Amino acid sequence: MTTGVTPPAGKKWIVGVDLGGTNISVGALPLDGGDGEVLGLKTVATDASRGAKFVVDRIIGLIHDAMEVVLAAEGGTESDFAGVGIGSPGPLDRDSGTVLNTPNLGWRNFPLRDLIARAIGLPATLDNDANCATYGEWWLGAGRNVDSLVGLTLGTGIGGGIVLNGEIFHGVSDAAGEIGHMTIDSTGRLCKCGNYGCLEAYASGPAIAHRAVEGITAGAESLLPGLVDGRLDAVTAATVYEAVVLGDPYANEVMRETAKFLGAGVASIINMLNPEMVVISGGVTRAGDHLFVPLRAEIRRRAFRSAEEACQVVSGRLPGTAGVIGAAAVFKKETYGVV
Amino acid sequence: MTTGVTPPAGKKWIVGVDLGGTNISVGALPLDGGDGEVLGLKTVATDASRGAKFVVDRIIGLIHDAMEVVLAAEGGTESDFAGVGIGSPGPLDRDSGTVLNTPNLGWRNFPLRDLIARAIGLPATLDNDANCATYGEWWLGAGRNVDSLVGLTLGTGIGGGIVLNGEIFHGVSDAAGEIGHMTIDSTGRLCKCGNYGCLEAYASGPAIAHRAVEGITAGAESLLPGLVDGRLDAVTAATVYEAVVLGDPYANEVMRETAKFLGAGVASIINMLNPEMVVISGGVTRAGDHLFVPLRAEIRRRAFRSAEEACQVVSGRLPGTAGVIGAAAVFKKETYGVV
Repeated sequence: MTTGVTPPAGKKWIVGVDLGGTNISVGALPLDGGDGEVLGLKTVATDASRGAKFVVDRIIGLIHDAMEVVLAAEGGTESDFAGVGIGSPGPLDRDSGTVLNTPNLGWRNFPLRDLIARAIGLPATLDNDANCATYGEWWLGAGRNVDSLVGLTLGTGIGGGIVLNGEIFHGVSDAAGEIGHMTIDSTGRLCKCGNYGCLEAYASGPAIAHRAVEGITAGAESLLPGLVDGRLDAVTAATVYEAVVLGDPYANEVMRETAKFLGAGVASIINMLNPEMVVISGGVTRAGDHLFVPLRAEIRRRAFRSAEEACQVVSGRLPGTAGVIGAAAVFKKETYGVV
Repeated sequence: MTTGVTPPAGKKWIVGVDLGGTNISVGALPLDGGDGEVLGLKTVATDASRGAKFVVDRIIGLIHDAMEVVLAAEGGTESDFAGVGIGSPGPLDRDSGTVLNTPNLGWRNFPLRDLIARAIGLPATLDNDANCATYGEWWLGAGRNVDSLVGLTLGTGIGGGIVLNGEIFHGVSDAAGEIGHMTIDSTGRLCKCGNYGCLEAYASGPAIAHRAVEGITAGAESLLPGLVDGRLDAVTAATVYEAVVLGDPYANEVMRETAKFLGAGVASIINMLNPEMVVISGGVTRAGDHLFVPLRAEIRRRAFRSAEEACQVVSGRLPGTAGVIGAAAVFKKETYGVV
């Protein structure tokens, strides 16, 4: 809920929680965001297989840890904390703070927000993890100076978020921003979601690795097998990036193909939403110009000129912390109406 | 500009202008929209080849005609008219009321809004034609009762518009909503825009006709050649629809394919924007269930369930008038801040 209340002078900190299927990251930020440094940041395994209570207790422990680190370093008391912003895989019901159905965690209709708020004794908010990561980049990262941006995180899947006029765009049922499941090839590769030709089936980390291995299996010469001691199932997007840096032409070709697929998806976003910025995050972006030069060229080819010229396509600036920072930003926005 | 001023009691009418590459439609609406009936509606050829001055004079003449019809039927004076809303092919600069570059009309940096406003002696607004058509459906058509919708008009091309919270979403440089140039098949058919695999290259009127003719040329049996006296270049999307109604299995297959391509595009929209409604307009929608049943099935297959369940996919309700009505709605919104 947006109350529009000015943040009270007494409150100094917000805790951000970035809950994922693999890891949980928690840390604290000053209410004004400071320089974007997350205090008391800690990342641990989610261990979802040990059950929901275990995961919630782990989150609560991490929140207490972060608060202690802040108070030890900066002084003050627990009453200096305004609350907790939580980012979680969706789909969610934001109003009730409930995780509706998260295959990675095995949760259904799980009242995550209120369980944490009650245990910590502070108000809390809940939003989608990809929305939070995008909002973090908008608040304190690549998008500091823009009003509207679209964020893509290339990881195990492709997460997406949309910020319009400084607010996360949620759509009518909190489901907006599923950019990874935009169709870029309607008769193309099978996606984990069951459909054919989703962007995620081409440009997620595992999809990039899969495409690289396909070519090698078909006989392409590459440094890649040597980098994984011949165990092709150990190739990841990071290995492909390593091979690119080592000057492997085949790996570079895989990266250029990735840029083409991604470019088709990003151009569709630009043609549809005409945003000021598209921020791309995730390990793959470490490839830098090897990815971004062909990516921008493909976007230029595909997007309408007036929309393309108005849009910066950049790498995220908050690797590892965008989700925590964005979760805190959501708390601030929902509680005080401003970020 | 949104002034937020309440519409003054003295003003009763708005004139809407829908300028296209082929036709111009002009008519008037009561300030409150009434029952959606357009008064003094007239549609004439644009005849753009006769030059910009000719087209502008033609529009001005049509505006005067519409005003006369209204005054003759309803009484009153010219001072009962609040102003003129104009919809035009883009790209546009809305602030200055300028058409930046319209290949169909051959105009560049053309100050259309002010030329008309000065000639008529009334204030005027300018927006993109596809935005206007979508806004018309939102104001008085299929989207009367929703806050957010996405509109697609399948015609010579595919026009698109986005309405969020009762406002046209324009993006940062007035270029948002180019849904026809969303990539649905990144290595697919060549589009008129120069790219490969745009939705428009599969599901616009000419694209549907083209796909139908391809199959017949390749030997498919169909009623279609008989409907055009064997002149296959005379096949249009309307002919395909006719053949569907006559029970032609091949034409039905073409329609089902159209639904699949369109479904991939609409599902991407739904996954990205999670709107309450997608309104599809244009001649092809006369195919009714022959199009909408397989279309909805494809969307259900491709879109995320929570987003798909929240979204109605419906046919436009204002054939021939959505553009005029929407142009008037834009005038009202920009002038008074409400519609």
